[in-house]
Amino acid sequence: MNIITLLTDFGLKDEYVGLVKGVILSINPEARIIDISHDIDPQDVLQAAYMIKASYPYFPKGTVHVVVVDPGVGGKRSIVAVNINGHTFIAPDNGVLSLLLEEGNIESAVAVENRAYFLSSVSSTFHGRDIFSPVAAHVSRGLPVQRLGRIIKPADLVRRGIKKPGIKNGNIITGVVIAVDRFGNLLTNIDKDLLPLKKRAVITFQLNGRKFSGLSDTYESVKKEKPLAIIGSRGYLEISVNCGNAAVFFDAAKGDTIEVVI
Amino acid sequence: MNIITLLTDFGLKDEYVGLVKGVILSINPEARIIDISHDIDPQDVLQAAYMIKASYPYFPKGTVHVVVVDPGVGGKRSIVAVNINGHTFIAPDNGVLSLLLEEGNIESAVAVENRAYFLSSVSSTFHGRDIFSPVAAHVSRGLPVQRLGRIIKPADLVRRGIKKPGIKNGNIITGVVIAVDRFGNLLTNIDKDLLPLKKRAVITFQLNGRKFSGLSDTYESVKKEKPLAIIGSRGYLEISVNCGNAAVFFDAAKGDTIEVVI
Amino acid sequence: MNIITLLTDFGLKDEYVGLVKGVILSINPEARIIDISHDIDPQDVLQAAYMIKASYPYFPKGTVHVVVVDPGVGGKRSIVAVNINGHTFIAPDNGVLSLLLEEGNIESAVAVENRAYFLSSVSSTFHGRDIFSPVAAHVSRGLPVQRLGRIIKPADLVRRGIKKPGIKNGNIITGVVIAVDRFGNLLTNIDKDLLPLKKRAVITFQLNGRKFSGLSDTYESVKKEKPLAIIGSRGYLEISVNCGNAAVFFDAAKGDTIEVVI
Repeated sequence: MNIITLLTDFGLKDEYVGLVKGVILSINPEARIIDISHDIDPQDVLQAAYMIKASYPYFPKGTVHVVVVDPGVGGKRSIVAVNINGHTFIAPDNGVLSLLLEEGNIESAVAVENRAYFLSSVSSTFHGRDIFSPVAAHVSRGLPVQRLGRIIKPADLVRRGIKKPGIKNGNIITGVVIAVDRFGNLLTNIDKDLLPLKKRAVITFQLNGRKFSGLSDTYESVKKEKPLAIIGSRGYLEISVNCGNAAVFFDAAKGDTIEVVI
Repeated sequence: MNIITLLTDFGLKDEYVGLVKGVILSINPEARIIDISHDIDPQDVLQAAYMIKASYPYFPKGTVHVVVVDPGVGGKRSIVAVNINGHTFIAPDNGVLSLLLEEGNIESAVAVENRAYFLSSVSSTFHGRDIFSPVAAHVSRGLPVQRLGRIIKPADLVRRGIKKPGIKNGNIITGVVIAVDRFGNLLTNIDKDLLPLKKRAVITFQLNGRKFSGLSDTYESVKKEKPLAIIGSRGYLEISVNCGNAAVFFDAAKGDTIEVVI
Repeated sequence: MNIITLLTDFGLKDEYVGLVKGVILSINPEARIIDISHDIDPQDVLQAAYMIKASYPYFPKGTVHVVVVDPGVGGKRSIVAVNINGHTFIAPDNGVLSLLLEEGNIESAVAVENRAYFLSSVSSTFHGRDIFSPVAAHVSRGLPVQRLGRIIKPADLVRRGIKKPGIKNGNIITGVVIAVDRFGNLLTNIDKDLLPLKKRAVITFQLNGRKFSGLSDTYESVKKEKPLAIIGSRGYLEISVNCGNAAVFFDAAKGDTIEVVI
């Protein structure tokens, strides 16, 4: 399999993503490179952690996923390559893989240290181009991750920065808005498994002083411009407005708290 | 032919477009996927209708075009697959194909209903990933659209939301700005066929209280920072400013009215 | 080799980039098309000149690079195809290739005039689609650039618009911010070769009334939220803030002057 996905905070205005692809194709001309997103808010490890978890299952096993949200570039943090559930993830060891490590089957993990697979000249500001890309290209050609560096114990991989919802009295869930999507939908960290679908009609949601009740199953279940709560495509609670923009409606932003009462 | 184009309002900040591509490649690893745009204003069916009309002829026959501007996702609207002029279009049946239906040769049309070609689990908020992508992938591998569901009469396809220019006294055309492009050019819905090129010097244009005359054939035909009217690359009237930004110059936006007097 | 890169100011909201790719694939279905960026500030030839110089070496020899920042489209400017250092560049003859012409080995240069390789209908506003794309596709299939039009002398290619840093008394360098990247890093036109690394600790930097000293070798060499100067991934001086945004910190923008005292 020759698919490589890219998830970064590089943005698209600069040449950074293009160079990553140029380096990959120079090493593996057969690679199929797919952008998951390059618009992670700069250095927002949490946002990227949820996004890679939501994304990787839609790619074939054998895919190489490159996740570069890397505020520590050029410094002391490690780069790791981890095989989980038949996929390979290459990322800084800064917690961005935490959600995958938690629930996935970790088949192997290595520190990426073998300079034979880096570009010959490595800058201190752009490891995406100089390390992640060539390494991913080699792995996509079949190089076993064990060749990249020393094996590390899964337990030693950094897991942090991932805030989980709080639960009080068994029926009050306090979550947080992880991201606001293009439509103004508010993506939360509240997993659908926390919400009892049988009680969907009576669940109440409170956000920035506004309250409503009922967990919807389609946008159309409320009138246009009315708010709703729904299990989004990631399998997490999302707050939306039918044919509207929930971020505007609730004056809400990333990091805001949402309270759910069952 | 293995080309699939994507035209959506998904934006690029979220994982949505990446997942569409992951699903496609999982089914058809040979697919060539081309983004037309993902920055249609959210739920702006009109803007997408003009864009797909302007775009599809530049792709080879046999191309599969996926158009997802879909405010009714998860609700009662149908999804359709339509063969027009040797191309296949897969879209919600909400009028987004209206301009193609109007002038194209409709070879076949079906309602997309055969769940055998959907992902096994279909969300109510992201049919782009769960229905449009797998269906497009199968069609790009050669699946006849007739296999996707029941045949529908072209006359039954939804055609609406497409505002045409008004014409008064045979010489006053009232059009509308469909979109403002990256350069600030104002793309209108006035087809070039409505403008007699022989009289180009005397045609006058009025927009937001400013008036000028003459239909140009190049940007350079006026001085820098001066406004001009030109037949744009879509074959429609556009208002531009040479080396400048017409949206700023005219304080204009999508939906503004333009009056043309011949 | 079948790689074609695209560097334009077309943006991604409109169909422009998609059509470029559609035309290319219609002619060369095997082409691998890589976006370097489409978010060059409209008509900013200088920004594009630095970006293509920083980018092309990361692609294999034989790559065709299409650079369309073209305020003169449809007017009197020429389009040129130039072979430099084993790569082919196709661009308007407006100075956007100046930095490459300066230091590269120019193997051949032609004016792109042979309409046999254009689309049959050429608009006056979108040569990206009608000329650049089909020409690039043909070259990527092996067409020698000499077939595109008359040979021109390298000395006749336009070289302008590229502002170089000033040097006073041998130790005061006055440069300019070429671009602000996605992270707020300030990319300057001061080549690393102008900065003596042996004296890195004592070099001082002044920008918008703020001053600091020391040329860093990693972001982490200063505390979080503190400014630093570093040789960026392009090989030029960049001003950054560790885990922060230098454009905000310095209230700086493209075009601002930076003074370096050695």
